[in-house]
Amino acid sequence: MRRNIYLSKLTLKEAQEKFYKTLLKYKLAQPLKKELISTKNSLGRISAEPIFARISSPFYQAAAMDGVVVRAKDTYGASESSPVILKVDQDFYFINTGNPIPFGFDAVIKIEDINLLSKVSQEKSRDTSGNFTDNLPAENINEIKIFSAAFPGQHIRNIGEDVVANQLIIPVNHKIRPVDIGALLAGGINQFSVRKKPKIAIIPTGNELIAPGKEIIPGKMIEYNSEIIKGLIYEWGGEARVYGIVKDIPQDLKKVLQEAKQQNDIVVVIAGSSAGSKDFTSEIIKSIGEVLVHGVAIMPGKPTILGIIDNTPFIGLPGYPVSAVISAEQFLKPLVFHKLGLTVKKREEIKVHMAHKVVSHLGDEEFLRVKLGNINGKIMAFPLSRGAGVVTSLVEADALIRIPLLKEGVDFGEEVRAELLEDLSRIKNNIIVTGSHDLILDILRNELQESISAFNLVCFNVGSMGGLLALKQKRTHFATAHLLDPENGEYNFPYIKKILPQSELVVVNLAYREQGIMVKKGNPKNIKGIDDLVKKDIKFINRQKGSGTRVLLDYLLKKKGINPLNIQGYSREEYTHLMVASAVAEGNVDTGMGILSAAKAFGLDFVPVTKERYDIIIPKEYYSSLKIQKLFTIIRSEKFKKKVLSLGGYDLSQSGRVIEG
Amino acid sequence: MRRNIYLSKLTLKEAQEKFYKTLLKYKLAQPLKKELISTKNSLGRISAEPIFARISSPFYQAAAMDGVVVRAKDTYGASESSPVILKVDQDFYFINTGNPIPFGFDAVIKIEDINLLSKVSQEKSRDTSGNFTDNLPAENINEIKIFSAAFPGQHIRNIGEDVVANQLIIPVNHKIRPVDIGALLAGGINQFSVRKKPKIAIIPTGNELIAPGKEIIPGKMIEYNSEIIKGLIYEWGGEARVYGIVKDIPQDLKKVLQEAKQQNDIVVVIAGSSAGSKDFTSEIIKSIGEVLVHGVAIMPGKPTILGIIDNTPFIGLPGYPVSAVISAEQFLKPLVFHKLGLTVKKREEIKVHMAHKVVSHLGDEEFLRVKLGNINGKIMAFPLSRGAGVVTSLVEADALIRIPLLKEGVDFGEEVRAELLEDLSRIKNNIIVTGSHDLILDILRNELQESISAFNLVCFNVGSMGGLLALKQKRTHFATAHLLDPENGEYNFPYIKKILPQSELVVVNLAYREQGIMVKKGNPKNIKGIDDLVKKDIKFINRQKGSGTRVLLDYLLKKKGINPLNIQGYSREEYTHLMVASAVAEGNVDTGMGILSAAKAFGLDFVPVTKERYDIIIPKEYYSSLKIQKLFTIIRSEKFKKKVLSLGGYDLSQSGRVIEG
Repeated sequence: MRRNIYLSKLTLKEAQEKFYKTLLKYKLAQPLKKELISTKNSLGRISAEPIFARISSPFYQAAAMDGVVVRAKDTYGASESSPVILKVDQDFYFINTGNPIPFGFDAVIKIEDINLLSKVSQEKSRDTSGNFTDNLPAENINEIKIFSAAFPGQHIRNIGEDVVANQLIIPVNHKIRPVDIGALLAGGINQFSVRKKPKIAIIPTGNELIAPGKEIIPGKMIEYNSEIIKGLIYEWGGEARVYGIVKDIPQDLKKVLQEAKQQNDIVVVIAGSSAGSKDFTSEIIKSIGEVLVHGVAIMPGKPTILGIIDNTPFIGLPGYPVSAVISAEQFLKPLVFHKLGLTVKKREEIKVHMAHKVVSHLGDEEFLRVKLGNINGKIMAFPLSRGAGVVTSLVEADALIRIPLLKEGVDFGEEVRAELLEDLSRIKNNIIVTGSHDLILDILRNELQESISAFNLVCFNVGSMGGLLALKQKRTHFATAHLLDPENGEYNFPYIKKILPQSELVVVNLAYREQGIMVKKGNPKNIKGIDDLVKKDIKFINRQKGSGTRVLLDYLLKKKGINPLNIQGYSREEYTHLMVASAVAEGNVDTGMGILSAAKAFGLDFVPVTKERYDIIIPKEYYSSLKIQKLFTIIRSEKFKKKVLSLGGYDLSQSGRVIEG
Repeated sequence: MRRNIYLSKLTLKEAQEKFYKTLLKYKLAQPLKKELISTKNSLGRISAEPIFARISSPFYQAAAMDGVVVRAKDTYGASESSPVILKVDQDFYFINTGNPIPFGFDAVIKIEDINLLSKVSQEKSRDTSGNFTDNLPAENINEIKIFSAAFPGQHIRNIGEDVVANQLIIPVNHKIRPVDIGALLAGGINQFSVRKKPKIAIIPTGNELIAPGKEIIPGKMIEYNSEIIKGLIYEWGGEARVYGIVKDIPQDLKKVLQEAKQQNDIVVVIAGSSAGSKDFTSEIIKSIGEVLVHGVAIMPGKPTILGIIDNTPFIGLPGYPVSAVISAEQFLKPLVFHKLGLTVKKREEIKVHMAHKVVSHLGDEEFLRVKLGNINGKIMAFPLSRGAGVVTSLVEADALIRIPLLKEGVDFGEEVRAELLEDLSRIKNNIIVTGSHDLILDILRNELQESISAFNLVCFNVGSMGGLLALKQKRTHFATAHLLDPENGEYNFPYIKKILPQSELVVVNLAYREQGIMVKKGNPKNIKGIDDLVKKDIKFINRQKGSGTRVLLDYLLKKKGINPLNIQGYSREEYTHLMVASAVAEGNVDTGMGILSAAKAFGLDFVPVTKERYDIIIPKEYYSSLKIQKLFTIIRSEKFKKKVLSLGGYDLSQSGRVIEG
């Protein structure tokens, strides 16, 4: 077999050191050459040399106030009881802010502090710059009275008060901000040298890839990794060029690499998601350059390749999106920063408590994506999907937790360090809801965001029982549930009493909703009810244990005396109504149970089974909090109700009402 | 007089409320209309509606590993001792990551976990997508051995594992990040609606203003405020158009305003720095619109004008740069954010201790710009220049401290809250140096930044005595001084013994340097030494009390029996060598004392007086710290020495050596 095995798998630190040491040896990690840029266009660029002021600002001694300019010594002894009288054009001139101080004068007195000894005319007068002004008293003022002494330099801006010529305004390797542009222009710097932007080639490869917008068919994957990496490079201050998708044909990739290395400072290849393509890339790099690292002990991101083609650093990113991003952050970002003369700042770290136990692979450093929530005064970390292919785990992530190489995982409640990807203030406003899934929650989340509020609804769809368990373990702000008690037909309360006997809880109805059997459009297999699920030609897809829908199904099967094992697919489980609907619509199953709104979203037909109660269960201590009350304001609003009703299958007559158990 | 007095001066909160309530009433603070954008070009834009996935990702059931695809039930009971044998094209197929799962199969076994019952050929085989592959075993494999049972769904990526069709990917009012672009493309969203960018007109006004690049003469000020505001607007997500400078001619400004209000969502006028221009603007707004607020109780930023022209919000920013920025942050930023559907995030706040007492004006909320430094485990706040015209105070600021309306100031050591403008990690790396000024410090600061280190040298030029006092009060990391003791001709040690008797200090020489008399180019007044300073036609400029240069001058005058009061300008003080050199070069003084390098920087001639010792004085506890050792590595480097020597007037033979007292 020609399969590569990562014999030489290095740790993250070893890989980074090997890569950078070699690049430094060949002078390939140095800051790039400089280019001259107009100061006005320099926002966000990096200074390539120290910038010293060419001129002072102010450039001359200027009045800092509107008033009169005097010689301080003429005013000595002035007081309320014995004011000093000064004559115009001899002892004083009128002056506006910014006007030059005439030779021999050394103090400005504010216009408000002067008694004018003649009426003001509306005629125009000139200020000391010779400009006409509407604001200064006109010529028929001959004398003024001063009631307190002025001191030398009073209300005068000295030359260089802000910037003095030859002073360092901006050191080298400084990222230019708006105020820097102001200070540079004030110091007479109209152009200066900045670092060239590093140019990075991004080459996506893989037979299975198609460009976004092309028709998608099974076996094809939309190529979007290049756009993520391009966006990151832009944010880091580099310039990315995305090449067309290259098929897994050695001579094709070789040709593109030869071209790319000449036109760019760094070449990045993104592998297809198959391990095959990765090995293939490494073989080609070996044939035209040097492979320094192949395989790094990180997860995701393991199949990273680091090397050099001629004099161009090469990075081979893995094909799965999360792997590609994690690897780019670890290897590409520091290189882009080096070439700009910058160092990567460490992300802010805080201590958090794990909301779940996570078992991690020994021998790999894992980058766990987590959502954070402030519960009971503790910041808790909720692990998101760990699949390297789940780009939404990065979209949702508030932080990264690194599980070290030689640690087998993290325990529930364990305190760990989290690198923040989101502002802590925003994280503290997360509202964590755990339990049964409903499309209403998406609408609620969006409405909350729309009402220019900083609150963010975070939904963990783990089923109704999972929601109650999360309440018991104090790792959610509230739960959602629709648990039917077969004994008495009551919803939720019997389960709450059993699982949370001691807790002070408020139960609020969110909706009544249609539960039923989702079938393909036109109901080709003619499914009329639960009894039909056992038919030989019917492939069913189930919900997970502990979900309200599963509880309902099992109750109905028992009532009808149907053996679940006779249903084809009873053991195959999905976690949300949408996932079940999706499987019925696009997969090779015929039916599954779920709510009407999910069936409608996928254009499925629907066989109603029951109308069920879907509630919010919330601890008393949170119920009255600002963020929860804000949530209920939305739930009770007409706008929200209208949007929910448009989904179909909901009765909101009790929505927002507290239900007594 | 037509002068406006801010009779109606509102507090910041009152002004903000009045402005926004009125804008909301007229529907002028609503989010802007949406526009369709290609997902690839959406980085940094704000979603104008919730975005639901169009398709699922993966779009089909796919292999998550390279290997073989099997029916799980065929593998039940497999173990090391009794492996199961499977036949190709019947019980299993070879499969690559990303390939679709064939109908009826439900598990993937990794290639590493399989015993292949025939040798691998180098011929090409096809994977389940029909692509040729180099990586899979070829056709002459007929059977495989399985040593452990597979479970249904093993190493299979289900449809919608990442994104499920109809799921909310991105809510409304969300700023698009690189990973969001990935998730959107994965969900089949190739274009979507974002908020239009708010268009803002920036109109600079004032007779004294000239555009950057024009020749500067006394009475003229370079107009750079518009470029700062433009940069801020860009960072906030808006689009700014800077208009040409408008003179203080009512009909001109009126004409530009009429045009600007039709083409923009917000109109901003930046006043000239004279109070006159501000009143003038307010009069014009009154004539063509409505003035809601004129004068806000903030400092800097008081002369802000808020109003409406027809249906366009109007903001009149003050002319001084710091005032303009503070006012823009308080009034323009929230409006731009509102129009994007966003709310302004509060800046991170930390507790700091004042390094100096500050007396503040009662009745105004002051925005104090401060530098921060971590000294003795406490974050100390060093007030920067409070002048509204000092844009470098914003360049240097690490944080803002708000001194409330009814507070008369803050005390030395007082704990106050600071809004961070800079990362705390970077702030903690600030090295605070207080004392005597020298051009070497600028070079040191720049070299420190260049050596790709995160350390930043912060210099407070308060003179040698000020440096020792700062050491005594524990508000500096080290001091710089060149204090001559007239009694014995010794430098620094006599002063240290007197001021810091108990402290454990290390004194390190930084340089010996030429002190002397700076005179205009060609020495037109023929100054030959100290004795000439008393001549009638000589205008002198002095350094402040406590500076080493002042101590030296006073010592020399005393030795020569010269009465300081006979020197014209003895009482006029500047704070740095460069300020004195600047005054001699550009102002109307003839001479001042200072170092050769400062004279050279301004092209002045120089009459040498003495060679003096310029030392670093540093507490033992800091001397061995990483950041100070890094500093000394630079001080002792040849690169640094070469740069310093090129300034002229330095002897570095003892530089970096510890001096025993």
